[in-house]
Amino acid sequence: MGTASLGELAVRFGCTLQGDPDTRVAHVATLERADPQALSFLANPRYRRYLAQTKAGAVVLDAASAAGCPVPALIAKDPYAVYARIAAVLYPTPPVIPGRHATAVVDPSAVIDPTAAIGPFAVIGARARIGARCTIGPACVLLDDVTIGADTRLVANITLCNSVVFGERCLVHPGVVIGADGFGLAPSDGEWLKVPQVGGVRIGNDVEIGASTTIDRGAIEDTVLEDGVKLDNQIQIGHNVRIGAHTAIAGCSGISGSTTIGARCMLGGMVGVAGHLTICDDVVVTGRSFVNNSIRKPGYYSGGIPADETTRFRKNAARFHRLDELARQVRRLTGGTPGSDDDADDDNKDA
Amino acid sequence: MGTASLGELAVRFGCTLQGDPDTRVAHVATLERADPQALSFLANPRYRRYLAQTKAGAVVLDAASAAGCPVPALIAKDPYAVYARIAAVLYPTPPVIPGRHATAVVDPSAVIDPTAAIGPFAVIGARARIGARCTIGPACVLLDDVTIGADTRLVANITLCNSVVFGERCLVHPGVVIGADGFGLAPSDGEWLKVPQVGGVRIGNDVEIGASTTIDRGAIEDTVLEDGVKLDNQIQIGHNVRIGAHTAIAGCSGISGSTTIGARCMLGGMVGVAGHLTICDDVVVTGRSFVNNSIRKPGYYSGGIPADETTRFRKNAARFHRLDELARQVRRLTGGTPGSDDDADDDNKDA
Amino acid sequence: MGTASLGELAVRFGCTLQGDPDTRVAHVATLERADPQALSFLANPRYRRYLAQTKAGAVVLDAASAAGCPVPALIAKDPYAVYARIAAVLYPTPPVIPGRHATAVVDPSAVIDPTAAIGPFAVIGARARIGARCTIGPACVLLDDVTIGADTRLVANITLCNSVVFGERCLVHPGVVIGADGFGLAPSDGEWLKVPQVGGVRIGNDVEIGASTTIDRGAIEDTVLEDGVKLDNQIQIGHNVRIGAHTAIAGCSGISGSTTIGARCMLGGMVGVAGHLTICDDVVVTGRSFVNNSIRKPGYYSGGIPADETTRFRKNAARFHRLDELARQVRRLTGGTPGSDDDADDDNKDA
Repeated sequence: MGTASLGELAVRFGCTLQGDPDTRVAHVATLERADPQALSFLANPRYRRYLAQTKAGAVVLDAASAAGCPVPALIAKDPYAVYARIAAVLYPTPPVIPGRHATAVVDPSAVIDPTAAIGPFAVIGARARIGARCTIGPACVLLDDVTIGADTRLVANITLCNSVVFGERCLVHPGVVIGADGFGLAPSDGEWLKVPQVGGVRIGNDVEIGASTTIDRGAIEDTVLEDGVKLDNQIQIGHNVRIGAHTAIAGCSGISGSTTIGARCMLGGMVGVAGHLTICDDVVVTGRSFVNNSIRKPGYYSGGIPADETTRFRKNAARFHRLDELARQVRRLTGGTPGSDDDADDDNKDA
Repeated sequence: MGTASLGELAVRFGCTLQGDPDTRVAHVATLERADPQALSFLANPRYRRYLAQTKAGAVVLDAASAAGCPVPALIAKDPYAVYARIAAVLYPTPPVIPGRHATAVVDPSAVIDPTAAIGPFAVIGARARIGARCTIGPACVLLDDVTIGADTRLVANITLCNSVVFGERCLVHPGVVIGADGFGLAPSDGEWLKVPQVGGVRIGNDVEIGASTTIDRGAIEDTVLEDGVKLDNQIQIGHNVRIGAHTAIAGCSGISGSTTIGARCMLGGMVGVAGHLTICDDVVVTGRSFVNNSIRKPGYYSGGIPADETTRFRKNAARFHRLDELARQVRRLTGGTPGSDDDADDDNKDA
Repeated sequence: MGTASLGELAVRFGCTLQGDPDTRVAHVATLERADPQALSFLANPRYRRYLAQTKAGAVVLDAASAAGCPVPALIAKDPYAVYARIAAVLYPTPPVIPGRHATAVVDPSAVIDPTAAIGPFAVIGARARIGARCTIGPACVLLDDVTIGADTRLVANITLCNSVVFGERCLVHPGVVIGADGFGLAPSDGEWLKVPQVGGVRIGNDVEIGASTTIDRGAIEDTVLEDGVKLDNQIQIGHNVRIGAHTAIAGCSGISGSTTIGARCMLGGMVGVAGHLTICDDVVVTGRSFVNNSIRKPGYYSGGIPADETTRFRKNAARFHRLDELARQVRRLTGGTPGSDDDADDDNKDA
């Protein structure tokens, strides 16, 4: 852990300093729990009520909040981003200590940069290429023909199947499985024939993949995550999916096979996207939505019906199951023609 | 496996015995498949139809069902709890056999109680503290500064990241990942900055965590599971979440970051809870609900719309997408004023 | 990788050949990207637009599409199944190389067929039985009393708990956990008692299980997957579930405890099925459905409400929360009797 003076931080990150430039901060804390050695921040208005009482050494906040800050302040246009940068100074990523743990099993044909670190019980298959300053953590299994770009870190207990390719500066959390076969099945006489999954997985630079997320290999061509994609935990990415640069997806979401998601999209938690769709750039899908049509226009999309008290919810859900009938009744009351009632069937058009 | 006489069991667990106290039972079985050495139970009325024909050695049931029981009965107010206690007698947890497998990699600074068992290919990092009679099963990876209280059992293939703290008597199933980074990202010029995740994870006593569940470390403060929390499989717990004592959550649920759930709550399967919410004590959320408002009153909450035949469902879903229009039509028919129509927008109030 | 002439393939798989029988194909490709050594196929009408320009060496397609094919064609009634069979010829599964990696930890009481392959850091518990030509990949953990039928392949990093039984020719992807305890809890004085989970898991022949799927052991009897079941990634199968032969379930679905699903069913992605239900044979449940009633009639069932633009969706969702009231208003307008309004409560009948 480092420490830093407010003066240094203000200069380095372009903040206006309100307070003593020699004050030093050594760690981060919430407004509510901060002590005088702590740096805190205010970005979410939910937490504004804690500002007046904070004991922090300094708070990163925007100009509008600065007047209400009882302690030194680093004033920035985007306090959360500045907080993230300062926290990275106070909590630097430990340097990679090069070397191969004695227990690691490495195929003789693997090419491992001497500055990389290979942990205990790692398995590295044939023809692997591991770049400079990579970390292959404990119990990671890399099957054959895997390529890992420089400065990428596999934390622990990660499985990369054959021919997975990673770019540089990626971070992969435990439990992740990349390159397992997609769910390719052809029906044949009441049984299922396996369709060989012969594509690979290509992952760009600066990608982060959360714990226990799974990314299937392509059926024929590759499954692709472009640069800067951020995936949370327990996400499932089907075969042949392509995710555009700097798109972020929250936990428990699932993207079905052959769907393409554009750049700079944001998907909330537990979003499900059906297969063979296209979502354009700059789309936000809020949590729990079910996307089963392509989205061709940037904007906000939603789909999760919020919970309610059980008795009330069940009454409404029962009515939902007769909604078409209800609409037809209303149509009759308003004198509409029965012929126009078939608008109940247009649910499958693209949004 | 043990055996026990009905007489012993009745005394030990406070049941009224109907039948011969010397009858012995040696294993458990369902009412339908039980043989005369089997103990069975009746708790769910769904299975009452199997009682009259059962061949069980004895059945645990409540007083109301006792008259219909053709074999010896252990009559209890809460038959399922008594069944659970008796099953634990018949199937005792095997004792922990102390020792460290020759293949385990243990940092010299780790302090491991001599009564603990460390399995093959376990990795135990710096400054770990492993309590009495713990089991660290095969292929578990504990990164640095992990603490495990007495009698806690990590079955196999579990990853605990830095600084995870477990209480006593916990049970953790394979595939679990605890302490991976939360999904903390700050937008900056169309890209994402990683927000360092510097909090930890603290888990109380008597907590059970199901297979492949993931629990993220806190962003600043800790993610906390209080005593007696029970999590099923494939659950995602976001950073800074706090779950109150004796709350149980069924499989595939996800709790977004910074949400607090009270004590003695029950969440069904595939429940999604949005971030930064508060759910009070004694709340039951039925399966498949989407909670996106805080819940401040104990009670039952629901949200999953049940499936229907596809043709019918699609017609109703299409109508749903025009429900606001339908309601406005009805309003006009009833002579309501258009001004009051903005009640369609109050969906975001707390429940 | 193999190569094959169109003549051989037409004879072997019963296709009508349109073109030169001596043309050879060496790999597979999509219509859009194929080169003259590639075999491609047309099964999904979405991709028909790429046929006219394809550079493939040959295309597998049906008779109706053959006229529009600019290159040699293998005409088949079911092009996708024929494609799957040919791809398996071009990309044969590598033969199993018998042997036990020096690092594997195998209990002396385990019986392992000499033709099986045991990878690095595999752990094989007491009394295991591993059949002919099995692969137990790197870092797989098999606790005690596991049985694996011939030709079954555990790719890597898979955990099988005690007493799991696999049939022949199964394929299991990384991250899978089978046989962890089911979520069996009995409430007792505001806390939870663990109900011992003493059943096993039995898996038939030709079953495929996707990455990070979890299958719990039975509470008393076994959890069962019959022959030919295909599970995608991140699926949760609760205790005592039984899944009939040749049923396929897409990713992120969850089946709650004690539910029975029939043969030849298809469940889409993110489907949730409540506990203690019965789904008959030949049922198709589309993606994102929530099944909370038994299904007793073969057919198509749906339940996911598609996403919409956020503003519009929220208005409709707000109306949903007052749908019962709306229906009562319409009832009054049509002159219906209030007594019949209690049809809002019949939501819990079996579908």
